[in-house]
Amino acid sequence: MIESLLNCENAELTHKTQKGTPVVLSTRLRLARNLVGTPFPERASMAQRSDILSKCATHLSGLGKMTKGIFFEISNLSDLEKQVLVERHLISRELCESKQGSGVYIDKDQTCSVMINEEDHLRIQFLKSGFQLKNVWKQIDRFDSKLETDLDIAFDSEFGYLTACPTNLGTGLRASVMMHLPGLVLSGQMERVARAVSQLGITVRGLFGEGSDATGHVFQISNQQTLGEKEEAIIERLGNVLKTVIDHEVNARFKCLEDSGSKLLDHIGRAYGLLRNAHVVTSTEAMHHLSLLRLAVDFEMLPETKRADIDRFFIECQPGHVQYSANEGIEPDARDVYRATKLRKELASLPSLDFDKVTVLP
Amino acid sequence: MIESLLNCENAELTHKTQKGTPVVLSTRLRLARNLVGTPFPERASMAQRSDILSKCATHLSGLGKMTKGIFFEISNLSDLEKQVLVERHLISRELCESKQGSGVYIDKDQTCSVMINEEDHLRIQFLKSGFQLKNVWKQIDRFDSKLETDLDIAFDSEFGYLTACPTNLGTGLRASVMMHLPGLVLSGQMERVARAVSQLGITVRGLFGEGSDATGHVFQISNQQTLGEKEEAIIERLGNVLKTVIDHEVNARFKCLEDSGSKLLDHIGRAYGLLRNAHVVTSTEAMHHLSLLRLAVDFEMLPETKRADIDRFFIECQPGHVQYSANEGIEPDARDVYRATKLRKELASLPSLDFDKVTVLP
Repeated sequence: MIESLLNCENAELTHKTQKGTPVVLSTRLRLARNLVGTPFPERASMAQRSDILSKCATHLSGLGKMTKGIFFEISNLSDLEKQVLVERHLISRELCESKQGSGVYIDKDQTCSVMINEEDHLRIQFLKSGFQLKNVWKQIDRFDSKLETDLDIAFDSEFGYLTACPTNLGTGLRASVMMHLPGLVLSGQMERVARAVSQLGITVRGLFGEGSDATGHVFQISNQQTLGEKEEAIIERLGNVLKTVIDHEVNARFKCLEDSGSKLLDHIGRAYGLLRNAHVVTSTEAMHHLSLLRLAVDFEMLPETKRADIDRFFIECQPGHVQYSANEGIEPDARDVYRATKLRKELASLPSLDFDKVTVLP
Repeated sequence: MIESLLNCENAELTHKTQKGTPVVLSTRLRLARNLVGTPFPERASMAQRSDILSKCATHLSGLGKMTKGIFFEISNLSDLEKQVLVERHLISRELCESKQGSGVYIDKDQTCSVMINEEDHLRIQFLKSGFQLKNVWKQIDRFDSKLETDLDIAFDSEFGYLTACPTNLGTGLRASVMMHLPGLVLSGQMERVARAVSQLGITVRGLFGEGSDATGHVFQISNQQTLGEKEEAIIERLGNVLKTVIDHEVNARFKCLEDSGSKLLDHIGRAYGLLRNAHVVTSTEAMHHLSLLRLAVDFEMLPETKRADIDRFFIECQPGHVQYSANEGIEPDARDVYRATKLRKELASLPSLDFDKVTVLP
């Protein structure tokens, strides 16, 4: 059912990496919205959930953004298909586990996805590669306005948008940026930075949100508060904090090069050598090494044109993607062999690492 | 002082690897000999040691094999120079620690070295690449006969050659073969084979003899007994045992390929990728990976012409060799960087691993 998403050659996360974008992988905004006069999904009866689903889906199909979009009822998807959508950040793990009567509408380029009957009736998400908080805010805001012209959305003059969980009350906005922070991790500064950032009301989490690890040195950094601040102010404040994090990351990278250049080049060299030659690679190891290849692009040791491929592998090396493309019945061991084969093949055309581009003190 | 040895382009261990020689790296025979009427080195006075040294050195210089040979008095060598000679298997660790008045005579091609005043007055060694027990025996026997024409060697009609340590009594012969046994190690059979072999009076040790580890899956296998058997019988018996070990090793390699082909190819691929791209490599790691590259040559995944280079790196990646060629004052950390740089440079011309040559069951 999901082939068209996987085969799309214009998908935001896998095909739209921009040139010269170190540190920030992608920007994602989501709005929580609920319909007036209907219980929240968790409290709604099966019939009510079903009503909400069909009402919202119909409405979404009429929006310009969703022309050529695709709708899935979650109960029609296999576990593997759900996992693939989670790995593409198009649906949440929570939606996978939801009761009957939930779904997702995804636009053709996979920039926009709207989950129906997740924790809230509607979870609208816009996702763009690179650091584009303001731009993505404009897009999601315009989409939300259109959506609200016909749908009666629960809004309180005092509390703002009403949501199933009070932590989303107010704007219902979660803005999160996927950051690639190998410099901070390798120099041992990540924990300190995360602590400092969290004191500013900003959350730092791993690649797949709450409780997940920072595989591949990738962190999701997002606003905590949704209440008491205007959307533009939330985004402005988050953006400013992230700019500081980017500065710290860039400094950490150069400090690593200066203080222990050989060690850093060793990490990068080994990652390159392993991905191009190994025959058994777990997804965690793949992510870790791909992260170092992305760093090599930042350091101009690999051509800028390879950045997009590396970002695509970040997604395509996830267990679900590998299993889906290999065949459903494959065993975990065979999955690691399949992943290694794919990486060797795809990376065969990489030029040698150009270590001379990097100036390292002896 | 030892430059000429290092720069020699015809040295046995580093330049004479023969084509198509899997499993056996080199064959080494040594004879322990002592002069009549003089205390063993440990018991001899300084004056006596000095006498023995000059007498033997003069005599050796007259032998045809030693034309263009080179003589070192051990006390004139720096610690680093001694280490380099140990790494080339030209002198023993014991000789390095001996008192004043000991030395070594080494022939031009480094096939033959004669230590003077090590444990015995004379320790004659012949070393050839490949599996050549009988051939090397002929050579060392001829050399020994010449040596004994003028020197009065202690020989007892009942006990044979007299030696400082009773374990060498009789023939004074130690025949040892350097074997590359990754198949037995990776398949977990090495311990069992070593135990079986030792019950036949054969000793299995690591790369640098007693108490050393089997770095790079390399083992020295040698006769234990020197008494009660003729030289030819010792060599015959050792040779037969080694042929069995070779069979076991070859079987183990193919069984590894059959049972866990991906894992074995993974080991080889990673070794290849790391040696060509790492920036910090210890000697132990280098040996381990070089061992797997040698295996790749055996499997025809790398061209046969590369075997000699790999064998040379086995020697040249040892700590002393790296430090000597980098400069005496280098720190251990910098040594690992220097080693990695050398390996990257030397291996840059390797073709890709040809995995298709190997048939692996899925």
